[in-house]
Amino acid sequence: MTLCLNIINHSVKLEMALQENLSVVLHAAGDLRLEQRAIASPRSHEVLLKINSVGICGTDIHFWNDGEGAGFAVNKPVTLGHEFSGTVVKVGSGVQHLKAGDRVAIEPGVPRDNDEFVRNGRYNLSPTCFASGLPPDHGGMCQYYVHDASYCFKIPDSLSFEEGALVEPLSVAIHACRRAEVKIGCKIFICGAGTIGFMNLLVAKAMGAAQVVICDLSSDRLKMAKEMGADYTLKVEKETAVEMAQKVKVALGSMPDITIECTGAEICMQAGIYATRSGGVLALVGLGHEFANIPILHALLREVDIRGVFKYCNTWPVAIDMLAAKMIDVKPLVTHRFALKDALKAFETTKKGLGIKVMLKCDPSHLGQ
Amino acid sequence: MTLCLNIINHSVKLEMALQENLSVVLHAAGDLRLEQRAIASPRSHEVLLKINSVGICGTDIHFWNDGEGAGFAVNKPVTLGHEFSGTVVKVGSGVQHLKAGDRVAIEPGVPRDNDEFVRNGRYNLSPTCFASGLPPDHGGMCQYYVHDASYCFKIPDSLSFEEGALVEPLSVAIHACRRAEVKIGCKIFICGAGTIGFMNLLVAKAMGAAQVVICDLSSDRLKMAKEMGADYTLKVEKETAVEMAQKVKVALGSMPDITIECTGAEICMQAGIYATRSGGVLALVGLGHEFANIPILHALLREVDIRGVFKYCNTWPVAIDMLAAKMIDVKPLVTHRFALKDALKAFETTKKGLGIKVMLKCDPSHLGQ
Amino acid sequence: MTLCLNIINHSVKLEMALQENLSVVLHAAGDLRLEQRAIASPRSHEVLLKINSVGICGTDIHFWNDGEGAGFAVNKPVTLGHEFSGTVVKVGSGVQHLKAGDRVAIEPGVPRDNDEFVRNGRYNLSPTCFASGLPPDHGGMCQYYVHDASYCFKIPDSLSFEEGALVEPLSVAIHACRRAEVKIGCKIFICGAGTIGFMNLLVAKAMGAAQVVICDLSSDRLKMAKEMGADYTLKVEKETAVEMAQKVKVALGSMPDITIECTGAEICMQAGIYATRSGGVLALVGLGHEFANIPILHALLREVDIRGVFKYCNTWPVAIDMLAAKMIDVKPLVTHRFALKDALKAFETTKKGLGIKVMLKCDPSHLGQ
Amino acid sequence: MTLCLNIINHSVKLEMALQENLSVVLHAAGDLRLEQRAIASPRSHEVLLKINSVGICGTDIHFWNDGEGAGFAVNKPVTLGHEFSGTVVKVGSGVQHLKAGDRVAIEPGVPRDNDEFVRNGRYNLSPTCFASGLPPDHGGMCQYYVHDASYCFKIPDSLSFEEGALVEPLSVAIHACRRAEVKIGCKIFICGAGTIGFMNLLVAKAMGAAQVVICDLSSDRLKMAKEMGADYTLKVEKETAVEMAQKVKVALGSMPDITIECTGAEICMQAGIYATRSGGVLALVGLGHEFANIPILHALLREVDIRGVFKYCNTWPVAIDMLAAKMIDVKPLVTHRFALKDALKAFETTKKGLGIKVMLKCDPSHLGQ
Repeated sequence: MTLCLNIINHSVKLEMALQENLSVVLHAAGDLRLEQRAIASPRSHEVLLKINSVGICGTDIHFWNDGEGAGFAVNKPVTLGHEFSGTVVKVGSGVQHLKAGDRVAIEPGVPRDNDEFVRNGRYNLSPTCFASGLPPDHGGMCQYYVHDASYCFKIPDSLSFEEGALVEPLSVAIHACRRAEVKIGCKIFICGAGTIGFMNLLVAKAMGAAQVVICDLSSDRLKMAKEMGADYTLKVEKETAVEMAQKVKVALGSMPDITIECTGAEICMQAGIYATRSGGVLALVGLGHEFANIPILHALLREVDIRGVFKYCNTWPVAIDMLAAKMIDVKPLVTHRFALKDALKAFETTKKGLGIKVMLKCDPSHLGQ
Repeated sequence: MTLCLNIINHSVKLEMALQENLSVVLHAAGDLRLEQRAIASPRSHEVLLKINSVGICGTDIHFWNDGEGAGFAVNKPVTLGHEFSGTVVKVGSGVQHLKAGDRVAIEPGVPRDNDEFVRNGRYNLSPTCFASGLPPDHGGMCQYYVHDASYCFKIPDSLSFEEGALVEPLSVAIHACRRAEVKIGCKIFICGAGTIGFMNLLVAKAMGAAQVVICDLSSDRLKMAKEMGADYTLKVEKETAVEMAQKVKVALGSMPDITIECTGAEICMQAGIYATRSGGVLALVGLGHEFANIPILHALLREVDIRGVFKYCNTWPVAIDMLAAKMIDVKPLVTHRFALKDALKAFETTKKGLGIKVMLKCDPSHLGQ
Repeated sequence: MTLCLNIINHSVKLEMALQENLSVVLHAAGDLRLEQRAIASPRSHEVLLKINSVGICGTDIHFWNDGEGAGFAVNKPVTLGHEFSGTVVKVGSGVQHLKAGDRVAIEPGVPRDNDEFVRNGRYNLSPTCFASGLPPDHGGMCQYYVHDASYCFKIPDSLSFEEGALVEPLSVAIHACRRAEVKIGCKIFICGAGTIGFMNLLVAKAMGAAQVVICDLSSDRLKMAKEMGADYTLKVEKETAVEMAQKVKVALGSMPDITIECTGAEICMQAGIYATRSGGVLALVGLGHEFANIPILHALLREVDIRGVFKYCNTWPVAIDMLAAKMIDVKPLVTHRFALKDALKAFETTKKGLGIKVMLKCDPSHLGQ
Repeated sequence: MTLCLNIINHSVKLEMALQENLSVVLHAAGDLRLEQRAIASPRSHEVLLKINSVGICGTDIHFWNDGEGAGFAVNKPVTLGHEFSGTVVKVGSGVQHLKAGDRVAIEPGVPRDNDEFVRNGRYNLSPTCFASGLPPDHGGMCQYYVHDASYCFKIPDSLSFEEGALVEPLSVAIHACRRAEVKIGCKIFICGAGTIGFMNLLVAKAMGAAQVVICDLSSDRLKMAKEMGADYTLKVEKETAVEMAQKVKVALGSMPDITIECTGAEICMQAGIYATRSGGVLALVGLGHEFANIPILHALLREVDIRGVFKYCNTWPVAIDMLAAKMIDVKPLVTHRFALKDALKAFETTKKGLGIKVMLKCDPSHLGQ
């Protein structure tokens, strides 16, 4: 049995050591293991959670395949998992807003320092943030997990645990649409019909986008995009970036105000610049290579702003309110479910690109939504 | 027969003088007349329009009753009407984006000077703006009307003329919700369940408001508010401003981020300040008395911003896109229709507060929506 | 000897109990005493400071006179003082960015909860903020004082302790000018030529204001305003609000883009609305009565935004950089200095309105700037 | 004698045909000629100007050398010149704010259509803008020139004609610093110590930048940068982009909030991304190649926004107010003066990179500043 290092602080007492805590631990590229790890005890500002649902993210697959991703590298064993929800089991002495039994959605990023970014409301940029499930910080693909109580948000009974777990990718889209300044009546071009593309589609529509066109290589994904509310879809074959931009314009009847790039592909960044209306925004969400060849003069002369989207900040309460108000429906995104013990099979399924969102169900007594 | 003064420029040739142009002309407080007026000829940048539908606004009733309203006074006869739509009959020599037969929604305010407000994109604040239907500028309650082509916006076949006319009050709400910075997931308190309150409800929801509570004195109007999507309604009896604020908080479960005041009543302004969350916005849309007793220290200490909403700018294209995309449905707002020749009856109906929006139908051959 | 309650947390060990800690303690309206109070020991995230300079603020005088002010009431003895600087004597175990001997400017407001306001970068609005020197939270008019290390900002050798203490009123002006959106080339009307008015003058100029006119009842203060860079001054006699606005326009050659109200007087708020250009901002800094009679229709129709300014957030680093870069000179504002033991005399002087800023010198070995 | 085509509208009467109107006309790459051209007559909204001073811009040299630049190509003879000032000689019948004898600074870009960009206050992005001195639109390197009166701004007697002409490059910097959101107390990295770099230095300082570091290849230019207020200079030798960023950080003591790139060089764009603080802005002003290899993942993960700066909008009044208020001094930038008849010599001097700004003096009776 491997002992679990407590997140953030390493000098805590072990607890419930005899209880099971099956965990999905990545030791190195290609070396993903199911292990029993010790259960930490919550400090005064923390809560101990019984995890219910954890989504597998493309970044998890990158870690597994390459031992790195999103600027993080696996140098020692790490429990993965940053899209998760669960139930409060025990609260630290200083926690007031939560009690045992509360169902919560978990924000994985927790600022460690009260630095300029935190004080200015952009804590996602704080360089010392704890990042649950991103190496070297342990995440939530396990049965019991300790987290800062301030970053656990109660969800109403009307929301499922899976909706709670989907607040994480939904948050990426909220942050992206805020950064892109989606406005009522605007037209939008989304590159990539995966989880993040779909979340952006849903959020953009909820913020008042009048028309959205979405592109992808896969007809199946585009079909699903249509079902989720895309006004137009664009199957990409061998078009150049300029040709893609032209097709977007034809579809919408005019150039989009905003492009939200969710693939990380260079050609999509280029297409985004060519496509976007002068004075508009190209929001970059998808992570690609370090360098890209960008038609920068085109962006400059037409004042198309290029804005990166790194994680999220101040999104959980909004996302939960949106889901509770039935403004958007994210449930159709979950296409596969696996018990925690079948995590490897779940990872294999995700890697093959089957379906959209694969959920790990960590509580054997609750394997539904 | 009274000869019509051409809007804006007074030295134009008369045209179609023998054709009918029944017009609703206000001569002074209480003195509203139906008259034949000459039809102007469009100059190079103008179009001649055959008017179809014109909404009667509360301001029109103020003009009729008091000979003044919204800071404008009736000093000489003026054709009323600033919520209107019609069909292009003739285009000036320099007009390129419109042709005879095009159906258009008309933006009544047209800047006269290229001043700082116009250059900065806030042309509604330009002090010399032409304002169709606001004295002394003639409006569109007539059969034929000439307007600056740049402020006539083509509507698609899928939109009715009445939807075209309703773009004007819809624009007030778009401008209000922009000024109030309505954001996704926010909670909103709207004072007043009339046309403008309803429009703000629809727009706020379309921009992603999670919950809206709306208050009014009338149960009937609140019932309609519910049907149009209000999450909560609040029938105002004899509450103080502080009590109103408290009830709003109870309804929403927390203080609203934004209050949109559409009544002009002092007590509602006060309630808006007490109700709104610290750092939020009180948007003032309703026109009331010159002075109001405001709990200003309360607003100061909690940084509740107070922002007036004067007309609109840059809203027609967005509003038309929203209607075309079926994002909102304004049609239920039209509760009464009258032929142009029955204008006085229509004004009486509006004055009595029956229904919500009363439409004048100016084209005898097309009296439906 | 009265024992000092530790700020924030009440269960700390006493320390240096034998050492002197002369403190200015307000027991009730009119009852200001000099007392020896115990010196607290810094917890892990805190520092113990030897206080050097503390400015007396108008709010301190309100507390002394009325037993209340700025929404705070004196219900039990409280050490006053919220404009202060000093030297680190001892650091808590977890403090990394400070060490004994560091000279610091102290931000008196410290958030207690990680609430929505804190996360969004507007921690000044957090309702549970600790507020040094505002009842019931103890302040810095004493010799030794414990504070959260994150809210103590190192000042370079080139800055005096008094400049460090003046960062607090300077911060009010930075926050006001940010909230007012002072922009390069703009014209500004400031009401009130006291410390806060002067600070706003200096900051507005540093942000690029092209012209500033400042009004006051006192010729002496206006003379000083001129010396500090005001382009125009306006001695107020018996003008109405409209007349004041007219004189402002004449002085500047056009209406100001922004009015910064630093008196709390109703007539100045009114003048601010009449004076400010359409689409501009009236920033309210001065605290007055709970209610004011506001020409709200005028503000609405011309979209003059009314924005309260409550304390500050994220200003200390900027203010220190500004002072270090010699962008502004606040030193002339200090017109009187008193040793801590002469605090009552200092309060009397401030109350009489003599001079501008009165400084208490808390370190007997360092009574200069 | 070549007849001058009237700008914008081609069907105007010739006037003063017998009077001299020496003009600098570019026929093709390398073919710059001095010619007499006819003098146009102002239409109702225009003024006829006697030109005094015209600055030579890097873009003018590009046109001369390459027959193209900034996205414009020389396909037929064009009078160059877009940094200019002069005296009103004659006003069109509809012009009210100017009269003969008024000294004016001229904004060269004039919107032709009332399109979405114009209405939203971003008229620089309007694709059909008239652009004085950019092919095919004739500019002001001549003696007499007709322009839209709304884009001629009166300058006070205290400003020289050369200051009037320098409002154009100053406007580029105002627009850049606005787009970059320069704020009080911020730290800035400027790439390129030429006219535009210097203007950005002056404007950034006037907007409250606490520290500015500027880099260039030339020691002479960096020396001048120091004299104009740069806090630090950085002579670029063979550093990589990462090394440049590191040196910037060392100079400022921390990463800059903003980088303003004025060279168009790929390595500077790269350095700008590496150098800029997370959440900051890289403003691109310098025009380079169509494509650049950009470390885009770095920008994305740290949310460093990339914003192009195309010309300017709503800057002339602000710039003139700044100069009149002596907030900045642009006069030292003029290092060379040539009479209009010596234009070729002036172009040669500019091409050699001697000095900073070369002025053409178009009025033989007024060759000074």
